Amino acid sequence: MTTRLRWAEQHLQYRFRSPELLERALTHRSAARKNNERLEFLGDSFLNFAVARQLYERHPLAPEGDLSRLRSALVKGATLAELGRDLELSPQLILGPGEHSSGGAHRDSTLGNAVEAVIGAVLLDGGFEAADACVTRLFSDRLEQLPDADNLKDAKTKLQEYLQGRGLSLPVYTVRSVSGEPHRQSFVVVCEVAETAACVEGHGQSRREAEQNAADRMLSIHDRDEKS
Amino acid sequence: MTTRLRWAEQHLQYRFRSPELLERALTHRSAARKNNERLEFLGDSFLNFAVARQLYERHPLAPEGDLSRLRSALVKGATLAELGRDLELSPQLILGPGEHSSGGAHRDSTLGNAVEAVIGAVLLDGGFEAADACVTRLFSDRLEQLPDADNLKDAKTKLQEYLQGRGLSLPVYTVRSVSGEPHRQSFVVVCEVAETAACVEGHGQSRREAEQNAADRMLSIHDRDEKS
Repeated sequence: MTTRLRWAEQHLQYRFRSPELLERALTHRSAARKNNERLEFLGDSFLNFAVARQLYERHPLAPEGDLSRLRSALVKGATLAELGRDLELSPQLILGPGEHSSGGAHRDSTLGNAVEAVIGAVLLDGGFEAADACVTRLFSDRLEQLPDADNLKDAKTKLQEYLQGRGLSLPVYTVRSVSGEPHRQSFVVVCEVAETAACVEGHGQSRREAEQNAADRMLSIHDRDEKS
Repeated sequence: MTTRLRWAEQHLQYRFRSPELLERALTHRSAARKNNERLEFLGDSFLNFAVARQLYERHPLAPEGDLSRLRSALVKGATLAELGRDLELSPQLILGPGEHSSGGAHRDSTLGNAVEAVIGAVLLDGGFEAADACVTRLFSDRLEQLPDADNLKDAKTKLQEYLQGRGLSLPVYTVRSVSGEPHRQSFVVVCEVAETAACVEGHGQSRREAEQNAADRMLSIHDRDEKS
């Protein structure tokens, strides 16, 4: 048995019938034209579904928006990379020489993509049940310790809900300025709430980022006012 | 047997064991607090996966980017609404009175969401194989008649590939101006290609839209030059 097959048995509790599928799942695009990108596409879509189903069953009363936010937190790149590290995935990766020497095996995106590709490979090798069991094992701790869905809301959503809950009108965001070099632009956005006459500026490298920043500052003004 | 169960047998070739799951899948949020939004979340994620798997198997040589674009075209709202119309779904929907009288049963989003919710209901009622068979039946014609993946690329992607194919440097996009009321802003973006000294303006209601517009115009300039 190859080292990689042993790794899969030990860390995924799964025995591959086709070792070449596992090899493929661990092959970064820097190493070969036959790499793991297609398997990543398949694994990503399966993972999204399998996690959605777990959340649906575990949270029978949660509204759709909460399920959706919880899933995003579970399948985002940073979480998948963390999972890759828990699985000691880096030494199993097959990378091109340049990518290898620049430390590519420890890069978040490379690790996360490989985790997805491995799930895709289990699906093709062992079918739906095997892949589902694999996702359940990999995510069981994280599914148990889910953050409160409310904490995952972005600042604009929180601000909107806060204002609606108090019968106030929605905030208005206006781009005040855009400056800087094409690929390093800096945005200034103003957020205003009519009834409170509050007006704050937010900054960011994209319009979205500047809006979130402004919403966050507007929320903390309101929070402070309520506490005082 | 209820009308809705008969509808499912006839149009989905699926017999529900739990009629209440089907009812739930057809209940718009305007009608009841127990509506189809959670089933839509589940069905959407299953549909994305099932279509990804079909594409993976049917296009063994397609790169990940093509698979991804083909899937987006298949599962986008407009396609799902079309599918809802093919299935004569509107008369089966359960809507609140206001929504009903304003023609909500024929709205694209309502139809598309209900198609996803029905797929989610089949999954819960009959399991993975039943839901997979249902998606395959629903999408078989569309999977057979897939557009060429190249036609689905957006203008920025096409322009980039065009320039790379000729050894030219990548286009640079710069926001020239942002104007107008907060919720109806108008963007002007300039797209430049260093070697050709070409420079065109694009307009749009978002930065992204203006960039796509500029890329499209840049492509047509190059096209024209090649043909002349």
